[in-house]
Amino acid sequence: MTISSLVQHIQEKQSYLCVGLDTDLQKIPAHLKEQPDAMLQFNKAIIDATLPHCVSYKINTAFYEAMGLKGWEIMQETLAYIPKTHFTIADAKRGDIGNTSTQYARAFFEAMDFDAITVAPYMGEDSIRPFLEYENKVTIVLGLTSNAGSNDFQQLILEEYDESLTMVPHITQGAVSKRLYEHVIGRVASWGSPENLMFVVGATQATEFENIRDIIPEHFLLVPGVGAQGGSLEAVSKFGLNKDAGLLVNASRAIIYASEGEDFANKASSVAKAYQEEMAVYLGNR
Amino acid sequence: MTISSLVQHIQEKQSYLCVGLDTDLQKIPAHLKEQPDAMLQFNKAIIDATLPHCVSYKINTAFYEAMGLKGWEIMQETLAYIPKTHFTIADAKRGDIGNTSTQYARAFFEAMDFDAITVAPYMGEDSIRPFLEYENKVTIVLGLTSNAGSNDFQQLILEEYDESLTMVPHITQGAVSKRLYEHVIGRVASWGSPENLMFVVGATQATEFENIRDIIPEHFLLVPGVGAQGGSLEAVSKFGLNKDAGLLVNASRAIIYASEGEDFANKASSVAKAYQEEMAVYLGNR
Repeated sequence: MTISSLVQHIQEKQSYLCVGLDTDLQKIPAHLKEQPDAMLQFNKAIIDATLPHCVSYKINTAFYEAMGLKGWEIMQETLAYIPKTHFTIADAKRGDIGNTSTQYARAFFEAMDFDAITVAPYMGEDSIRPFLEYENKVTIVLGLTSNAGSNDFQQLILEEYDESLTMVPHITQGAVSKRLYEHVIGRVASWGSPENLMFVVGATQATEFENIRDIIPEHFLLVPGVGAQGGSLEAVSKFGLNKDAGLLVNASRAIIYASEGEDFANKASSVAKAYQEEMAVYLGNR
Repeated sequence: MTISSLVQHIQEKQSYLCVGLDTDLQKIPAHLKEQPDAMLQFNKAIIDATLPHCVSYKINTAFYEAMGLKGWEIMQETLAYIPKTHFTIADAKRGDIGNTSTQYARAFFEAMDFDAITVAPYMGEDSIRPFLEYENKVTIVLGLTSNAGSNDFQQLILEEYDESLTMVPHITQGAVSKRLYEHVIGRVASWGSPENLMFVVGATQATEFENIRDIIPEHFLLVPGVGAQGGSLEAVSKFGLNKDAGLLVNASRAIIYASEGEDFANKASSVAKAYQEEMAVYLGNR
């Protein structure tokens, strides 16, 4: 899917909601647990219920890998069930030396047909390039994550940084990257464009959004951390939205585990609809 | 497997060789390609041929994921084929927020029974802790990688660093972590011990080994980059070996693709044996 198709979908739906399918077999409603393919049935019900209110689905690969071979199969079947109208993200946090990243790109862009994959930046340019070589696919690189551990390394202050980054298109002139995550975002942005790169920025980091928009005004940000992790949709939207929306805000647990009963899909739909309605207001206020 | 069992195996074999099963279906010998389960047959032949000369196998998950469901199955079967005498590593470069890393730990330590997994450090402490909670399992964190991209972020110089790290057991007093990778190694080392943590340090970074041994004299280092990537076993061994050996040196392409003909297993055995014999010399010279 192209970014412009995604932007059009966001405008039509008045929603920049991404539903996170972090499906844990232990947390799905009791009446489903007994059935074979319980996890797949749960995912299908959640997708049916939330489809009108969101523009994207994010499959957290860890939850499927934890179930072994069967889980990998359910991941494929879940992806196949999502209509092509919706932007699909493999939340896989992959990244390795070039010849290995090439294999990961094949896994998620060819063996499976995801629109996007999340990638960790620690190993640098040749670990990210193989993903960028795919047309109409999007690489979503970790910038500033939503967890407590984001303070351990991402916020470290650099003594030296590359001032030439301020000359890169799509990066605001004069922005200075002093902290590691700022440097990572600026540097990675220079390897692609807003058409094939997004960045993960946690919703719990709302105070940093203005700063991040100084560095990359045009790129989409994938924003986890609303809901169970406590991030504010209002704050994220206020500082993160740009002319194309430029945000995909993900909620996982708050939607898919909205109820433990037989009404789980209805409740998931209600929560997703409430997010959509709030998003419509913020889109109108831009 | 415990680290002391690994150390004992290294002493018995006079080898710290890890064989990397980065098996690419397109690169295996022509006579095998036609057969069903070609990749598994290839892996079994390589394991049989190299078993006497190595102490560890590293399965690069990307090459299996690229084949979809069938690849995941072959990964499981390959792991099951490796005798329990040998230390098994999932080279998976995983890492995510706590509840997700918990799922990755389940995937590789429970659904599959690997002894160790490689983990990326960018997301900090809560992304690594869930792996450390397993007894007799080892978490191998990226320190300084073997690829060109290691210069992009890992070598950045920090303005601020945590001097309290020099008070952590297993870290040499007075070592100062100025570069990002040094800081990562020192900080991560404080979250575990040499019994449950190793670090990835590329063989192409031989000049840095002395420095790294100043920070973590006791930890095992997993060293890729010998062979196809051009790293020197002699230099790595000179600066990296410690009293317990403290090194696992991985070779993948140089061993598994030593020949494209029907003699591929014999050739793999010869190359592995040559590495072992060279290692015996370095172990003797410590």
